[in-house]
Amino acid sequence: MDLENKPEWSDPNNPDLCLSVIRKGTAQENSQAFVKNIRFQKRITAGPTINELYEGVLAGERSFLARAITLTESNSEQHFQKAQSLLQRLLPHTGQSIRIGITGVPGAGKSTFIETFGMYLCALGLRVAVLAIDPSSSITGGSILGDKTRMEQLAKSPLAFIRPSPSGGKLGGVHRKTRESMLICEAAGYNVILIETVGVGQSEVIIRGMVDFFMLLVLTGAGDELQGMKKGIIELADAIIVHKADGTNKENALRTKSEYNRILHFLQPATKGWQSKAYSCSSLTMEGISDLWGTICTFKKNGKASGVFDDRRKAQSREWLYSMITDQLHFQFFHHPGIVNELPKLENEVMAGEKTVASAVEVLFKHFFQN
Amino acid sequence: MDLENKPEWSDPNNPDLCLSVIRKGTAQENSQAFVKNIRFQKRITAGPTINELYEGVLAGERSFLARAITLTESNSEQHFQKAQSLLQRLLPHTGQSIRIGITGVPGAGKSTFIETFGMYLCALGLRVAVLAIDPSSSITGGSILGDKTRMEQLAKSPLAFIRPSPSGGKLGGVHRKTRESMLICEAAGYNVILIETVGVGQSEVIIRGMVDFFMLLVLTGAGDELQGMKKGIIELADAIIVHKADGTNKENALRTKSEYNRILHFLQPATKGWQSKAYSCSSLTMEGISDLWGTICTFKKNGKASGVFDDRRKAQSREWLYSMITDQLHFQFFHHPGIVNELPKLENEVMAGEKTVASAVEVLFKHFFQN
Repeated sequence: MDLENKPEWSDPNNPDLCLSVIRKGTAQENSQAFVKNIRFQKRITAGPTINELYEGVLAGERSFLARAITLTESNSEQHFQKAQSLLQRLLPHTGQSIRIGITGVPGAGKSTFIETFGMYLCALGLRVAVLAIDPSSSITGGSILGDKTRMEQLAKSPLAFIRPSPSGGKLGGVHRKTRESMLICEAAGYNVILIETVGVGQSEVIIRGMVDFFMLLVLTGAGDELQGMKKGIIELADAIIVHKADGTNKENALRTKSEYNRILHFLQPATKGWQSKAYSCSSLTMEGISDLWGTICTFKKNGKASGVFDDRRKAQSREWLYSMITDQLHFQFFHHPGIVNELPKLENEVMAGEKTVASAVEVLFKHFFQN
Repeated sequence: MDLENKPEWSDPNNPDLCLSVIRKGTAQENSQAFVKNIRFQKRITAGPTINELYEGVLAGERSFLARAITLTESNSEQHFQKAQSLLQRLLPHTGQSIRIGITGVPGAGKSTFIETFGMYLCALGLRVAVLAIDPSSSITGGSILGDKTRMEQLAKSPLAFIRPSPSGGKLGGVHRKTRESMLICEAAGYNVILIETVGVGQSEVIIRGMVDFFMLLVLTGAGDELQGMKKGIIELADAIIVHKADGTNKENALRTKSEYNRILHFLQPATKGWQSKAYSCSSLTMEGISDLWGTICTFKKNGKASGVFDDRRKAQSREWLYSMITDQLHFQFFHHPGIVNELPKLENEVMAGEKTVASAVEVLFKHFFQN
């Protein structure tokens, strides 16, 4: 579809322009133009059929992959249904990749690391998809991660696919979209899925819930840094990577690595049967990058043998189901006209100490179940 | 009601015994005995009326206070309605106390501290209620905290009221029950409410959400200890109390206090406009106990003047409303017969990778909204 050469009056973003052009012609011209316009718009919004997307994704065609992801990211009800049909068909072709989560303190060099690590994997002939999850985007509506401009080299590789973080919306929002994108990338034959997140808030717990292997990028100076970092995040990691272990910083990085190893020794492992360890690497000299990949391969091999790997994936699907049920319950409740009407008044009464919380909840649920 | 002298055959816990005794008499005797028995049982289960409870609680009568709390703790639908009517009437008489949350690492001496601190407050003529919140009790059904045997002296004081942790149940479970107990204690004229919790999991966040002042009890050796403690918990505290600052341990305790103060200086304060600090005290020598109470009084005075105190209470009520809505949504959903029927099958399909999560959620919600 040639969007560049489309007639100006059919601009779907500017229906007024379209109408003004139509009004200028004769009745017959207008009628013909109108029909043409409708047909054209239909072509734009309809896009490829589910079958075309299905075939295109399975063939690993990047343009179809991108369109399939766009479809799952759409907030329209119609697209949602279509995306679910597509996903349902793709499902038997998913699950073959290794899913790797990456987080890190600001300044740890996540983008540089992902570019280097991704290029290394491409050099091995592996297909690499980089997705991003940014919980803040559900508020801002924008996306700050997975930016192609930050990974210029990787973005150019025919074996790599980089997708920025989606924005929020209905039913599970940004997290559902990232998970579904991951599945589509797997169906398209990507071997390694890298999911990056900003190192704030609850995003680590969410990302841990969708990946097999989770790593935390840190800088030297563990002592000071540790006190400023949630211990909980360290406990989620299968590996702690001391990044920028090069030049004059190398010695320091090795010391930091030992410090983290000492701490990890006392913590509950993030994955059953796997001792989380600290590693050091450099995106500049490439030192440690291949060892890290070796570690991840061992992790998968051991986990597959013991069943831990597949058990976790099953548990993750189950947890995802339950978290989406909660999301959907909230969505239905807080968009219910009875609740929209009653909640502000009851909320004020509760805050003013005029009504008990439990009785306010009772009133709300009577409204909720009325229709 | 004299339960000791009740006729054996009317034992409500043993209806068989009752019936066997009835069968022995003549028809008329049996009929009379039956009516008497029903009346007696009714008296037991009906208990005092809402009005009696209302008057009794407001008069500060301990037996009515205990019965009112028992009513809110009941899981029966009928008692729930009755408890809510009572609470609604008591609501205008609540809110006058200072609500203090206490947590600590195991071994920090929470019970000893609460006993000493509570006795000190009673000596000032203040009425002190000790409640406990133990999230694990919603699983075990039991209660491990707020045990009177651990606070023997305080339990004997006519100015103190100690209530063990409630067990779980419907609509908000253990947390709702603790909050409602707190309100009833306030209506009964208690000036200080101490809410203790075990130092694990999410209980600190929950307790922070229902108190004005939150303190964390620690032992000496902050350095090592800090790494084993969630930084998040320190951030919730308005005061860190280095306990057991006596004898040969005193010097050490003062050093630990400085270490914590150094850390607190870098953290976001738990309460707007209040610099959280570390204090030391001893339940043995009473040193630091009166200073701590002075600190809490200053906290309340400043907060009342700036509005922060009342704003927090309003925000807490609001958050409580929303968390109870979520609880209730889950309760309604997972007890819905359509969901009970469908969920296991769909859950298995999702875990086996045969069905997308979003489509499973769609099916479930169709069932949920069918009746």
